[in-house]
Amino acid sequence: MPKLRVHNFTVSLDGYAAGPDQSIDNPLGVGGGALHEWAFATRTLRQMFHMDGGDEGLDDTFAAQGDVGIGATIMGRNMFGPIRGSWLDDTWTGWWGDEPPYHHPVFVLTHHRRPPISMQGGTTFHFIDNGIDAALARAFDAADGDDVRIGGGAATIQQYLCAGLIDEMHLAIVPVLLGRGERLFDHLDGGPAGYECVDFVSSPSALHVRLARTTDSSPKVR
Amino acid sequence: MPKLRVHNFTVSLDGYAAGPDQSIDNPLGVGGGALHEWAFATRTLRQMFHMDGGDEGLDDTFAAQGDVGIGATIMGRNMFGPIRGSWLDDTWTGWWGDEPPYHHPVFVLTHHRRPPISMQGGTTFHFIDNGIDAALARAFDAADGDDVRIGGGAATIQQYLCAGLIDEMHLAIVPVLLGRGERLFDHLDGGPAGYECVDFVSSPSALHVRLARTTDSSPKVR
Repeated sequence: MPKLRVHNFTVSLDGYAAGPDQSIDNPLGVGGGALHEWAFATRTLRQMFHMDGGDEGLDDTFAAQGDVGIGATIMGRNMFGPIRGSWLDDTWTGWWGDEPPYHHPVFVLTHHRRPPISMQGGTTFHFIDNGIDAALARAFDAADGDDVRIGGGAATIQQYLCAGLIDEMHLAIVPVLLGRGERLFDHLDGGPAGYECVDFVSSPSALHVRLARTTDSSPKVR
Repeated sequence: MPKLRVHNFTVSLDGYAAGPDQSIDNPLGVGGGALHEWAFATRTLRQMFHMDGGDEGLDDTFAAQGDVGIGATIMGRNMFGPIRGSWLDDTWTGWWGDEPPYHHPVFVLTHHRRPPISMQGGTTFHFIDNGIDAALARAFDAADGDDVRIGGGAATIQQYLCAGLIDEMHLAIVPVLLGRGERLFDHLDGGPAGYECVDFVSSPSALHVRLARTTDSSPKVR
């Protein structure tokens, strides 16, 4: 059965997945760029953005897992861009340039309708305005037997965690203190219940943690 | 110059230093006991409680550092016991039996006066009702040139962090999800500003993190 997975989701030591005040100049909020230094040092991420070199150790092993067997991605609207409220026009097409590193359908959760955008390299952004279950159904359909990944951000992961829909989650906890911003483990009403830590290993740059459902729990909805 | 240090302060993957609903049956709140399994597996902690055996690896190295050069301890009243409000009588003398593992003066922050208690093995509990600065002055005086340790809990550490008084802090982040409870990194108003991560290394049981002042910051008060 296809799974819903989170990969390479990076959190500061003090628990923040993004700094405050996201803007076009600070896609991950003020200070948030430091979160992903570990990932951009890996061979996998560098190749994704057509750069040579990069490390091939533990960080790379985890980074590479994020694409294996994934057929579609779901993300929150704030991960897609800095615009809030209604779309002003159709010029914003994401942070990733003409060829986003997805190469498959991406479902963007939003309250504001917008036609799909087909990008170079096989990525199509679809805008879903009728909730996380609808987005998940569309994504599993598009993935056609492969797994679906939740890209982020924190609020989107929280919604799927609360609904009991996430099967496994890889987090990278990094030696960075942000002080404020968006927490991953927040608004969970006692969650993440029903998960246990199945990997716990660090490089000098990141602690890699993998959470999976406990064997006695099962998805609430599917 | 003597330092104010935190050691072996353990936090769950989701950021909690204690579970909810602390009580005499759950000194660390519901589920909180799992936080300290790494520590009680070490030779250092087992010796502290007069038990044989225990691991001697990375966890033990960090555990042992917590006592080196420490001459006094400060703790919050909730770390001392489950009683809230006025002391009902003098029967509660801490969680640690007749011979607490401190063997030096311990200053307990409280709003409710109480005479000192001398325990076996050299621990004396002093109750300080005029604030964190007064407690710190008393503790440095008692330590007589040695360092002072803050034992916890989260609220006590937060107060000293906000005041810029902590020099270094060792945290153990463990593969446990508590879901709710008392967060360490909370109520900090943008803090812990002025600290950087100088150690970041994991065993299978804990990620050990050491935070120290950045070289360009200095104590706000001393």
